[in-house]
Amino acid sequence: MRIGAQTKGVYTIAPTPFQADGRLDWASVDSMVDFYASCGVDGMTILGIMGEAPKLDATEALDLVRRVVGRTRLPVIVGVSAPGFAAMRSLARASMEAGAQAVMIAPPPSLRTDDQIVGYFGNACEAIGGDIPFVLQDYPLTLSVVMTPQVIRRIVTENPSCVMLKHEDWPGLEKISQLRGFQSDGSMRPISILCGNGGLFLDFEMARGADGAMTGYAFPDMLVDVVKLAACGDRDKAHDLFDAHLPYLRYEQQQGIGLAVRKYVMMKRGAIACDAQRKPGSVLSPVARGEVDYLLERLSLRDPRARLGG
Amino acid sequence: MRIGAQTKGVYTIAPTPFQADGRLDWASVDSMVDFYASCGVDGMTILGIMGEAPKLDATEALDLVRRVVGRTRLPVIVGVSAPGFAAMRSLARASMEAGAQAVMIAPPPSLRTDDQIVGYFGNACEAIGGDIPFVLQDYPLTLSVVMTPQVIRRIVTENPSCVMLKHEDWPGLEKISQLRGFQSDGSMRPISILCGNGGLFLDFEMARGADGAMTGYAFPDMLVDVVKLAACGDRDKAHDLFDAHLPYLRYEQQQGIGLAVRKYVMMKRGAIACDAQRKPGSVLSPVARGEVDYLLERLSLRDPRARLGG
Amino acid sequence: MRIGAQTKGVYTIAPTPFQADGRLDWASVDSMVDFYASCGVDGMTILGIMGEAPKLDATEALDLVRRVVGRTRLPVIVGVSAPGFAAMRSLARASMEAGAQAVMIAPPPSLRTDDQIVGYFGNACEAIGGDIPFVLQDYPLTLSVVMTPQVIRRIVTENPSCVMLKHEDWPGLEKISQLRGFQSDGSMRPISILCGNGGLFLDFEMARGADGAMTGYAFPDMLVDVVKLAACGDRDKAHDLFDAHLPYLRYEQQQGIGLAVRKYVMMKRGAIACDAQRKPGSVLSPVARGEVDYLLERLSLRDPRARLGG
Amino acid sequence: MRIGAQTKGVYTIAPTPFQADGRLDWASVDSMVDFYASCGVDGMTILGIMGEAPKLDATEALDLVRRVVGRTRLPVIVGVSAPGFAAMRSLARASMEAGAQAVMIAPPPSLRTDDQIVGYFGNACEAIGGDIPFVLQDYPLTLSVVMTPQVIRRIVTENPSCVMLKHEDWPGLEKISQLRGFQSDGSMRPISILCGNGGLFLDFEMARGADGAMTGYAFPDMLVDVVKLAACGDRDKAHDLFDAHLPYLRYEQQQGIGLAVRKYVMMKRGAIACDAQRKPGSVLSPVARGEVDYLLERLSLRDPRARLGG
Repeated sequence: MRIGAQTKGVYTIAPTPFQADGRLDWASVDSMVDFYASCGVDGMTILGIMGEAPKLDATEALDLVRRVVGRTRLPVIVGVSAPGFAAMRSLARASMEAGAQAVMIAPPPSLRTDDQIVGYFGNACEAIGGDIPFVLQDYPLTLSVVMTPQVIRRIVTENPSCVMLKHEDWPGLEKISQLRGFQSDGSMRPISILCGNGGLFLDFEMARGADGAMTGYAFPDMLVDVVKLAACGDRDKAHDLFDAHLPYLRYEQQQGIGLAVRKYVMMKRGAIACDAQRKPGSVLSPVARGEVDYLLERLSLRDPRARLGG
Repeated sequence: MRIGAQTKGVYTIAPTPFQADGRLDWASVDSMVDFYASCGVDGMTILGIMGEAPKLDATEALDLVRRVVGRTRLPVIVGVSAPGFAAMRSLARASMEAGAQAVMIAPPPSLRTDDQIVGYFGNACEAIGGDIPFVLQDYPLTLSVVMTPQVIRRIVTENPSCVMLKHEDWPGLEKISQLRGFQSDGSMRPISILCGNGGLFLDFEMARGADGAMTGYAFPDMLVDVVKLAACGDRDKAHDLFDAHLPYLRYEQQQGIGLAVRKYVMMKRGAIACDAQRKPGSVLSPVARGEVDYLLERLSLRDPRARLGG
Repeated sequence: MRIGAQTKGVYTIAPTPFQADGRLDWASVDSMVDFYASCGVDGMTILGIMGEAPKLDATEALDLVRRVVGRTRLPVIVGVSAPGFAAMRSLARASMEAGAQAVMIAPPPSLRTDDQIVGYFGNACEAIGGDIPFVLQDYPLTLSVVMTPQVIRRIVTENPSCVMLKHEDWPGLEKISQLRGFQSDGSMRPISILCGNGGLFLDFEMARGADGAMTGYAFPDMLVDVVKLAACGDRDKAHDLFDAHLPYLRYEQQQGIGLAVRKYVMMKRGAIACDAQRKPGSVLSPVARGEVDYLLERLSLRDPRARLGG
Repeated sequence: MRIGAQTKGVYTIAPTPFQADGRLDWASVDSMVDFYASCGVDGMTILGIMGEAPKLDATEALDLVRRVVGRTRLPVIVGVSAPGFAAMRSLARASMEAGAQAVMIAPPPSLRTDDQIVGYFGNACEAIGGDIPFVLQDYPLTLSVVMTPQVIRRIVTENPSCVMLKHEDWPGLEKISQLRGFQSDGSMRPISILCGNGGLFLDFEMARGADGAMTGYAFPDMLVDVVKLAACGDRDKAHDLFDAHLPYLRYEQQQGIGLAVRKYVMMKRGAIACDAQRKPGSVLSPVARGEVDYLLERLSLRDPRARLGG
């Protein structure tokens, strides 16, 4: 299955499992991939920001790609953002050779003007080769690069291999509407739009025209259900399920410690053996763990998948 | 009632009501103040970031202070953040003369090092005069100034007139715990901590030791209830009420368009006559209004105060 | 004499003279204006960034405008940059009524995309009124707003009252060439381009097509000479004079302490009585003063105007 | 010769020579190293910001280290700044094994508070190993991380392997004085301070207590002379030579296009065969080349080393 403008569903953003001493935890890579498959996701994105990608060296990154691709038949997207195009190209081409389906590129924080942003993606596309489909990551909150819908349209138009938007502008609902409007008025070819931001607005993003989610929420099975409910027009049920998760989801969505929360819950769900991050990383205090446990307990009253024990 | 380290409860952040043409809407100032009083808030903060303070000129700002103070017996805090100390001093002293109880100061975005931040508040305090109690605003997401708990302790220690923290770091729960820890170990004198961020974490902030909320959520009556429930230890009930509001609260909490949402709902609640902002402002699309209406409708099933008609 | 697209020469950026205790020093305002006139400048810009404008309150700012305008027949441009349009409008209109010839507007640091920047100046122009000629300030190093030549063209095209660019992008030589190219190819109407950055590239800026300088270098008489020499094609002589000043000019051009250097030398030249800044300001250490004195002494061997005594 | 707190002199920052098509130009690496040796420099720093380090992939970076180290007996410092510690460690350890003498580390732009900065260097030092001497790079203009002298002292004190500061804060003269003051009052152990910023303030930095220069100015032989003249107390002569270079030096020191200027002049001096940069890079316009040629011609009247032909 090719990643393309028609892609729909849930592509989970996978964390990178480490052991307590910072080494990669290969057994947990396997169990995590299996966990995601069992949740019904449509694909996986690895080596994203949440995947602690910059903390891996070049060899480790490629080893991870190979391990994940070798473990699953689901399509895998590889984050290849890098400070320079040589490293980006190396990882992109090696990943595709290893069996990945597409790559994802975020803009470096130094970009400011519209032309700088458009120029950057033209160069990036040239560097990795126009034969590799790529996902454009739009994440101003963390990357401090603001792309207008018009800039996204220019990037899509100038680079045929740009097939998908990882949408996590905030606020971003109007942006989805505007991009879909560009498609309607014929000024932009269709692209797939998958939404991030931990899923915080997924309930409305689907109604605005998103194709699904690309985020790392620790209950990807909920995302799968919400996307399906939205797709078949069951708006109220989609909101009911979403709202049940929202108190915990919001907690997980905190910048800075969100990944610690997420890994902790994934550990509780058996997806990974250890919730450690490589340095510099965040750690949950005992009080924070208690808060998470409390939220899960409350959630479990409405969604039994959150019944995870003490 | 003096604002001081012992202050508890809900201080609502008030928007500034405008007419459609951008003129101040004095009748709505009155009705808004009455609305807040009827919600049971403990005080009001005007001319904050959400109050579009920088869009008023010096005369308008002071007129607003006088109008609000003249309308209510509740304590009023006035945001006096300004690019320079002369304007800050002018507004601070005139506001106190007009009957305000305290002022609030945010750091300018250019500050970087710990010493720059501490130095700034020392200068600000000297400029307005040490006799005016002030609230320290800690809001890195918008202001891009990051204050560690240690920096806050230095500011509190060096400036006796700093009596309260408007806490809206994100994430921020551990910060509250750390500051309360400083009080426990005797390294910082007590201060009042009221939380912002639209209330997004109020349920847990209270358990961490916050004294209440200082935010502009369009249902301050809910904030009042949650703070009371938390204060009397009714944790589950506090969460139940909070969770019911969370789907809408999260929507209102979006950067950039949050104020448009808030004013729209306050207009629906009869607090103000018009939801216009002065330029540059954000406007709700018809689709967005529909989303808000839908959220309110769902909320009204659990909290009748959200039953606001079409 | 109207400020317009045809304006040429040297418009000095004037500091605001304070007394040691922070009060405005009106006598020094007068002597400073006289000093500038004696240097042969073509006009003055007051209340710019270097004029510590944000440190004045609204009343002081307008008093300063009146005092300067009342003291000279030279055209005066007033910096009216403000966090909001109400204050900008108030100062702009009152300044023009007082006899100023134009205003200057810098973009707020929060602007990012091309459309945000263009939109801002459209709103600003509407706020102050299209009858007031304005100078567009392009100063990315300090303001962190990056305007491409295309964005400047859009602003110029959409706002007929935009008649001048205060050019201080860095690097900026190609930008001048591009803007003049827009005029040549008919895609932009002519504007005046006066250059800032302390004059650090004035020698080449003139050859690129600049109309002169708008900067606060403590020897505006040198700027006047260089602009004249360049205008009559005496390139080598222009560089000779410029190079003689460069060691000191570079020292004065340091961010953060440049204003302290400048006021110190203006005090030595008798233009102002005191080199104090309002808080927060920078202060020269005794070692730094010694370095400045040494540079002036060396300069005086080639330009007698720098012979200022101990 | 070990790099350590006693290190003095000129460590040139070396660019990375590329061919026109973007491939590494190994012959030019050799000729460049020979050129630097002939200029009398005391050492070289490779893979710095100006060395386009992020544009090389991991293999190329290490190949460059080996080539340079194999070509010279001068001590070589390797920039190992990286988005993560795994890549930093890999390059640092492999570089030392290859014969490098020390590494250089710049802080990532996301750091804000004093504690974050100090913590980062503690982690970095732990990652590369305490046995590798490292140079702390302090370059706020480009990196947007502001380190107070107190923060530098903490880093030096907590990490015995921090032996040198690459000083390029701007303004920075007082900072050198403060750091040397810390050494005098016994609160900080001695470190070597070499200055960057293209040499723009080298004349005064030496008098403030710097040990020399670490910058990539295209005439390192001038830097060598100025450092020697300053070291033997010949202040006026040092300034005379420095001032002769300043008009061109200032031109080379422009952000963004400075490297293009530098490579162009190094090509003219025969150090490298081609002045190309890898994408994204800057290119000199014909007008800019003419400006540089003009500046060199003027310089050659005072320093024959600048007589480089058409």
